[in-house]
Amino acid sequence: MENINEILSLDSEEKILHFNKGEFLQRTGVLSTSVFLVKKGLLRSYTIDEKGKEHIFMFGSEGWIVGDNIEPGEKGELFIDALEDSVVTPISKSAPQKSDFQKLHKRIGVLQKRIIMLMSAPAIERYNHFLEIYPDIVQRVPQRMIASYLGITPQALSTLRGEIAKGK
Amino acid sequence: MENINEILSLDSEEKILHFNKGEFLQRTGVLSTSVFLVKKGLLRSYTIDEKGKEHIFMFGSEGWIVGDNIEPGEKGELFIDALEDSVVTPISKSAPQKSDFQKLHKRIGVLQKRIIMLMSAPAIERYNHFLEIYPDIVQRVPQRMIASYLGITPQALSTLRGEIAKGK
Repeated sequence: MENINEILSLDSEEKILHFNKGEFLQRTGVLSTSVFLVKKGLLRSYTIDEKGKEHIFMFGSEGWIVGDNIEPGEKGELFIDALEDSVVTPISKSAPQKSDFQKLHKRIGVLQKRIIMLMSAPAIERYNHFLEIYPDIVQRVPQRMIASYLGITPQALSTLRGEIAKGK
Repeated sequence: MENINEILSLDSEEKILHFNKGEFLQRTGVLSTSVFLVKKGLLRSYTIDEKGKEHIFMFGSEGWIVGDNIEPGEKGELFIDALEDSVVTPISKSAPQKSDFQKLHKRIGVLQKRIIMLMSAPAIERYNHFLEIYPDIVQRVPQRMIASYLGITPQALSTLRGEIAKGK
């Protein structure tokens, strides 16, 4: 699967923003949200449940779009932070091109797959799918974040990786 | 939340198709998939896991769009069948309008919410969200299908409804 590049049109005058590792691009509850194209580095979007547990919605490395798709007037649901020093371009939701339309369909396809896998696929399949769509991320983030993305405990992920290494 | 009406443009010459209750509009594994606007009746899209268990991806009553967002050349992932006698219009992915763009964003928002809830929200919150987006469906489908959509057992749903009825 390719990266989801440039879902939305870039402004003719491209803005460039820098974020240091650990900095927030968005906190949950804000009314005005942005969508970011990652030029360099690595972003993460996530939510925190009532018990204070983090659930990773997505990662975004070079070429990916990270944003919070909420309705106008609704509050942001996601935290977005930089896992590495990052360079991003905020992108405009106006003036869509026909190519954007195809990319939005692709995004919907990725989310559909994620839902189906969360509901029905065993953890090992979800992990293999993760490696397929994020081949570069596995080396760049702590194992506990991959576990959070998969919806399993770090211990379960460790067991899974052990089984894969043994060729089970 | 409003229904997601007419995500894609209708052809100028609108086709009308009729399906009886229980009929399939699509089976998993097909190479050519369609997207349907429901004019009347009720559709369901779902997947079946390795153990033969059904997982409902979505319901679609009047005004909803039901389809399988796969990449061109990939095989369909979803079964789509009619839960009631239904009248649908197949819709074209070509020639998108600017308003379609907004609707695709809305769809992405719905899917984002679903993923976040599947990962992090307790079953009672997922049930309340279901009632909010599908206020008309709860009367029209068996409880076991609602449980399947929520990712819980029919027994757990029954307990949940008992607790809500008691005002817990």
